[in-house]
Amino acid sequence: MAKSAKKYVYFFGNGKADGTGAMKDLLGGKGAGLANMTLLKIPVPAGFTITTEACNSYFEKKKKHPDGMWEQVLANIKKVEDAMGMKFGGSKNPLLLSVRSGSKFSMPGMMDTVLNLGLNETTMKAFQEKTGNERFVLDTYRRLITMFGSTVMGLERSRFDKALDAMKEDRGAKLDTDLTIEDLKELVRIFKEIFASGTGREFPSDPLQQLKLAINAVFGSWFSDRAATYRKHNNIPHDLGTACNVQAMVFGNMGENSGTGVGFTRNPSTGEKQFFAEYLPNAQGEDVVAGIRTPLHIDELKKQLPGTYKELEKIYRKLEDHYKDMLDLEFTVQDGKLYMLQTRIGKRTAAAALKIAIDMVKERRIDKQTAIMRIDPEQFERLMHPSFDPNTPVKVIAKGLPASPGAAVGKVVFTAEDAEKAAKSGNKVILVRTETSPEDIGGMYAAQGILTARGGMTSHAAVVARGMGKCCVAGCTAVHIDEETKVMTIGSHIFREGYFITLNGSTGEVILGETPLVLPDLSGDFNTVMKWADEIRELGIRANADTPDDARMALKFGAEGIGLVRTEHMFFDTGRIRAVREMILADDTEGRRRALAKILPMQREDFAGIFRVMNGKPVTIRLLDPPLHEFLPKTREEIEEMSQEMDVPVDKLLARNKALHEFNPMLGHRGCRLGITYPEISEIQVQAIMEAACEVALEKVKAIPEIMIPLIADVKELEVMREMTIRIATEVQKRYKVRVKYDVGTMIEIARAALLAHEVAPAADFYSFGTNDLTQTTWGLSRDDAGRFLPIYVEKGILERDPFITLDRKGVGLLMRMAIENSRKIKKGMKMGICGEQVDPESVEFCDEIGLTYVSGSPYRLPVARLAAAQATLKKKMKKKGKHIGASV
Amino acid sequence: MAKSAKKYVYFFGNGKADGTGAMKDLLGGKGAGLANMTLLKIPVPAGFTITTEACNSYFEKKKKHPDGMWEQVLANIKKVEDAMGMKFGGSKNPLLLSVRSGSKFSMPGMMDTVLNLGLNETTMKAFQEKTGNERFVLDTYRRLITMFGSTVMGLERSRFDKALDAMKEDRGAKLDTDLTIEDLKELVRIFKEIFASGTGREFPSDPLQQLKLAINAVFGSWFSDRAATYRKHNNIPHDLGTACNVQAMVFGNMGENSGTGVGFTRNPSTGEKQFFAEYLPNAQGEDVVAGIRTPLHIDELKKQLPGTYKELEKIYRKLEDHYKDMLDLEFTVQDGKLYMLQTRIGKRTAAAALKIAIDMVKERRIDKQTAIMRIDPEQFERLMHPSFDPNTPVKVIAKGLPASPGAAVGKVVFTAEDAEKAAKSGNKVILVRTETSPEDIGGMYAAQGILTARGGMTSHAAVVARGMGKCCVAGCTAVHIDEETKVMTIGSHIFREGYFITLNGSTGEVILGETPLVLPDLSGDFNTVMKWADEIRELGIRANADTPDDARMALKFGAEGIGLVRTEHMFFDTGRIRAVREMILADDTEGRRRALAKILPMQREDFAGIFRVMNGKPVTIRLLDPPLHEFLPKTREEIEEMSQEMDVPVDKLLARNKALHEFNPMLGHRGCRLGITYPEISEIQVQAIMEAACEVALEKVKAIPEIMIPLIADVKELEVMREMTIRIATEVQKRYKVRVKYDVGTMIEIARAALLAHEVAPAADFYSFGTNDLTQTTWGLSRDDAGRFLPIYVEKGILERDPFITLDRKGVGLLMRMAIENSRKIKKGMKMGICGEQVDPESVEFCDEIGLTYVSGSPYRLPVARLAAAQATLKKKMKKKGKHIGASV
Repeated sequence: MAKSAKKYVYFFGNGKADGTGAMKDLLGGKGAGLANMTLLKIPVPAGFTITTEACNSYFEKKKKHPDGMWEQVLANIKKVEDAMGMKFGGSKNPLLLSVRSGSKFSMPGMMDTVLNLGLNETTMKAFQEKTGNERFVLDTYRRLITMFGSTVMGLERSRFDKALDAMKEDRGAKLDTDLTIEDLKELVRIFKEIFASGTGREFPSDPLQQLKLAINAVFGSWFSDRAATYRKHNNIPHDLGTACNVQAMVFGNMGENSGTGVGFTRNPSTGEKQFFAEYLPNAQGEDVVAGIRTPLHIDELKKQLPGTYKELEKIYRKLEDHYKDMLDLEFTVQDGKLYMLQTRIGKRTAAAALKIAIDMVKERRIDKQTAIMRIDPEQFERLMHPSFDPNTPVKVIAKGLPASPGAAVGKVVFTAEDAEKAAKSGNKVILVRTETSPEDIGGMYAAQGILTARGGMTSHAAVVARGMGKCCVAGCTAVHIDEETKVMTIGSHIFREGYFITLNGSTGEVILGETPLVLPDLSGDFNTVMKWADEIRELGIRANADTPDDARMALKFGAEGIGLVRTEHMFFDTGRIRAVREMILADDTEGRRRALAKILPMQREDFAGIFRVMNGKPVTIRLLDPPLHEFLPKTREEIEEMSQEMDVPVDKLLARNKALHEFNPMLGHRGCRLGITYPEISEIQVQAIMEAACEVALEKVKAIPEIMIPLIADVKELEVMREMTIRIATEVQKRYKVRVKYDVGTMIEIARAALLAHEVAPAADFYSFGTNDLTQTTWGLSRDDAGRFLPIYVEKGILERDPFITLDRKGVGLLMRMAIENSRKIKKGMKMGICGEQVDPESVEFCDEIGLTYVSGSPYRLPVARLAAAQATLKKKMKKKGKHIGASV
Repeated sequence: MAKSAKKYVYFFGNGKADGTGAMKDLLGGKGAGLANMTLLKIPVPAGFTITTEACNSYFEKKKKHPDGMWEQVLANIKKVEDAMGMKFGGSKNPLLLSVRSGSKFSMPGMMDTVLNLGLNETTMKAFQEKTGNERFVLDTYRRLITMFGSTVMGLERSRFDKALDAMKEDRGAKLDTDLTIEDLKELVRIFKEIFASGTGREFPSDPLQQLKLAINAVFGSWFSDRAATYRKHNNIPHDLGTACNVQAMVFGNMGENSGTGVGFTRNPSTGEKQFFAEYLPNAQGEDVVAGIRTPLHIDELKKQLPGTYKELEKIYRKLEDHYKDMLDLEFTVQDGKLYMLQTRIGKRTAAAALKIAIDMVKERRIDKQTAIMRIDPEQFERLMHPSFDPNTPVKVIAKGLPASPGAAVGKVVFTAEDAEKAAKSGNKVILVRTETSPEDIGGMYAAQGILTARGGMTSHAAVVARGMGKCCVAGCTAVHIDEETKVMTIGSHIFREGYFITLNGSTGEVILGETPLVLPDLSGDFNTVMKWADEIRELGIRANADTPDDARMALKFGAEGIGLVRTEHMFFDTGRIRAVREMILADDTEGRRRALAKILPMQREDFAGIFRVMNGKPVTIRLLDPPLHEFLPKTREEIEEMSQEMDVPVDKLLARNKALHEFNPMLGHRGCRLGITYPEISEIQVQAIMEAACEVALEKVKAIPEIMIPLIADVKELEVMREMTIRIATEVQKRYKVRVKYDVGTMIEIARAALLAHEVAPAADFYSFGTNDLTQTTWGLSRDDAGRFLPIYVEKGILERDPFITLDRKGVGLLMRMAIENSRKIKKGMKMGICGEQVDPESVEFCDEIGLTYVSGSPYRLPVARLAAAQATLKKKMKKKGKHIGASV
């Protein structure tokens, strides 16, 4: 080893490990887990982990190993040989190795694995001597050639599979095991030919050569298209790199006393405290994960090898005690001896996450703060999604495994590509596949739900769908799919592309046709978590709501006030649009006033209704914002209809439409610009608000109106509008002989207002950041038009994500920071919120970080915002203390 | 005087003065001039100036005098009485006083004046005793009642004028002087009746009461509508306030040895070194200024009172020696004795300003720097305006006074209101008036030129038009105007509203019909000034130019490079639009490439042409910027035509139009967003640029292309485009075997790019601030749509000026400062310019201040930009030294 070389390789085995469970960044999740288990004296085949640093360095050096890495690998092979009492490439008791990727975050099925490395003519003989099982050795060898050929050398796997199928057909064999030893020898020969003809070289016989190529392939798989896509969808940085785990092989396929299994320490769907595992006798682990064979219940192991099962139980409890979280396990039994191959924090459904977190608090394993940090807010959001109405009769036509809970309705599509295409044009689809593979990821994202004919609860489809929180019914054997002709048959039912189908991922039911869905029942665990989150969070939560009904919903979802009432929605109401149009068509102020007088009592009642619901809670009301032309009909037909109805000549309507036409309405005559040029419009609105507040005050309802002036670019606009507002408000209160506390504030939604906030602050009682428009103006980007290029931007990696969905911290966020800091220098503790619907967890965290008073979004999104706000508070506190609360990954 | 009172009143008289000529801020221009002249021992009637601070305090205290002011006034009246040997309100040798406004900046005719204060029954008798001229005393009294009634009490002046006219008609009198003393006594009675019935009170007989009300009226006139409008148009701050000058009356109307005059120390139209004055015997100064009587040449004074004329000559030379600038003078001769009433820096035409400045340098009175500071850039700009083609025959139908030089063509309008209305709808008009009054200001701004039937070279129309640099023919007696029926007759020609007429303000000619205009000849003085400016300025000057012809013009006007070539203009060319449309209609990249290949050679030749003209000077070329739909026809008719021409079905064209339609094109699929989604478009453009540069290099022409990427919001956009540009550029140079130095930079025209400039800088060789789009995005304001509310904003005082015309220092400027500072921290001395056409003097000064490398605008605007840049440099240097170079006002 070169004396200056960095440590790139970490050994584990025989109860000792160079690394620890905390070194996920360097060793990846799998490597850290293996080190941890080894240190916990849990039986793990010896091995070593090559670090993520080595991987990154490999890419920086244009696919050359960093200095010293290979020497460290060789030294560690020696340690593994010593630990296992075997020799890699040895002519006696030969050591076989597996090579597996393992990054910081789990990316199921995304990255490469090669097993059985080290086999060649010499070691096969020795291996056969040791096992006395020629069939097993030949089978292991042909698996090595297949995996090495496809994974390392990039040959199509189907070439090997086809050759196997052809031989089975030729020999009349149903199962692989029906083939004779001679058949297998012939198969190995054929496989080697396929390898040679496909790669232009012989299958390598040097074990070290095999190992080196396999390690490089694992590194290389980090930048495979499908891994990159997965990271993009899951917001995993591309520069983490993967670690590479090299480990002594153990075999679950050495006979009936061998087997392999995977499991969760608790039920990952429901969270129930119950060992949830599957076992497949005489099989290698990859058989289970790939869904090639459907595994059995773990009771099978208990029945066959009760001692081994007992040890497994002891181990999983020990691991849960150690990690204080629900875990996902992989193990292999070789000739009755148990080996743990992997452990990590288990993926779970939102419902399970809630239940497990709450149970662990009850079990006094963790505190409430940790429980709150354990819940993934994005997953949690899906709890808000609809499910089946239990009262609607449905026709169940098949039942598969309840692989990922939830309800999904959509049109049948047969390929991932079709799913993506259909989703783009706005169709809801169900992706049906015999089984899914990593190539299907894009289609799985696009689909409402996934139905597979094969594979178990831990098959690719099941694991990935649960991760996505997407409804999935897996292993539904009644389903027959002809992917070429795109026809699915379930019993007597024939489905072609576009036919409706419904899935119940919680029961595994497949339901005929389109089924109506209902809102989720949010109580129990949900309420417990919300209560804890509310105790912890510092950020206020408000809702955007335009009607009393909306307001009631907002309260139900935990709103502490209304952050945005859009008054224009009231203007569109069928009963009022006529008066609104009269106003727009009026030739002078007087005419507009006459028309507005008709709207006044209706608006007053709107506001009064909201105030009654929100009694004692603040209600931010934005004065009319959209340009007036939005209220006029656009098509010739509509115009003619309006002409008849209002007895106004078509020509006049056309002329007014033309006069009001704007090239860029987003940047046009709207917001406070309307109120300044047509003060009577704003005046009537303020009058309606204040009259409503006074009227409800007489009913002993406490209205707290916050009157909000939209779209200012200069403080003078606000000053003019503020003066008008105070004048009208004073007049109304005098008339009603009632005093109402009200505020006058503004939206910060134009870059200039944010830049000059120090000038705006003295004239504003509060700010609300309109991050939708602020994003549009800061980016020079029309949300309505960006669809033509934003997706290409995301695809090309120019944009990491859509800035309209998650707040752009760097640009828009900088403006917000400036505005907040400069304004609070002038008005300490000034009330400031955000009402732009960017209440996703990341945006909420940012809003908390920059010191906003509250966030406001649509009622359904509030629970997630409450959770995210609590997590933000906890992260902030931990950061201050320099500590980390480990979130579930 | 209260002991703590501030000094609000400054005395001048008898060769002594409390103030000095430098105290313009406090005493106003007139007050400072009076103090200065007094100190220079020039004969000035004694008086005192009440400060602008007193005026501002008066408004702050809701129209109450500040403490101590009145006491100071009383004390100073005493000093005036002593100096003049007269007594205010005295029954012997009574002192009469004038009250005149006077702010820091001259606002001709905008503010109030009251003369002859102090007359009542008692003083009239004493005055008559002293003068022995009852007619004169009565005439003076009736002037007092008129002025006091109209100016102080707000009665309509016409009520007095009508009464005078009625009496003249009744008595058969032609001139005022035809009225008898009895008639005048009767007139005074009638005037007092008009006063009493109009104001509800008797005409005040207490001289101090008269004075107090007059002072208040002068203060009050500061916030009159017309004064506010004038300030708005001239960018004079509203918070300066006016001083008030109270001065002993002297009378130019005391007989044939008396008279009044105004003049300039040099010719204000041409700048010739020649005393340019007018004299009106037996008249008061107001008669001249108001244009009521047309004054005579100053030779009249020389003839009548040669000694007095000699003294006047001595005085004007003394003043010019003192001020080292051309001055404007007002004087009165009372019984042969000369009194100077006012002096100030004289207004002048741009041509005169040039000549005077250059002459004064030649005369070694001032240095070049001072000469440059003396030229008003806005006025200078008008030198660039067109004049008559001397070769086109014109039909001169009348000749008036050449009151303000230049050429003007337009349709006749008869009222200021009509002028404004017509100008708003894009018509060019000539305002024709019998005489103009301050109420006409708005119309004069709106008109191309002004024609009056009455008034001399110093009439309201003449003075104001010269100030505006607007062509004016005044006192054209051949013109007869019936303002009621809106008909003008000139000889046999009858003009109604809308008829075309042409004015030559340099000759006074009125020309029939519409006459073609030509570009100004810019040589001589112009070149001298430009040479001096170029020696002084630090800011670079470039032009926006799209063709070789534009480029030639740019060089002619002093461009040191091209700051912006808009390539889209080349796309619109009739020869190419077909290929451009083929590109837009293509269904795939290959189709687009085929169409683009047709455009390539044409674009290459465009660029080569520009490079040849600009040999050795940088040329910044912006890649395609506008959205593609701008290149497609819009109306059904055009679409059908295109369908036939290109043999493409109408439906396809309609569909493509629909597909490309954008809600907010300004924020849509344009700029680099086009280049990123359709790389082939940018590739062909870069190829054309680099091939052109290589081709001209073979002709020994040095091309310096600066390739500019428009509309970036994030550095990644620039990185993608930069990589493409370098790739193509390298390939082209290799192919031509030529090396060309080129830069790749970007426009900063989106708020986010400015905010994150520290990220952008590493990927950019240069920046060009696109302040047009940057203003649109920073303000959230569509330039195309702002017309509906921006004028109302300016009117209501919400906006001081249109941010698209003069750079918004506070908002947009802040973003620019941030971008410049943050980027130069990373790249010291990074090249940065502005190409948004905001090259007005204020914007140029700001660009110099924030450290831009250059400004770029249309060729015609460059001379002003060069001058403004030189002035900016000088101001900066003086500021550093803490000195001031006095600009002409």
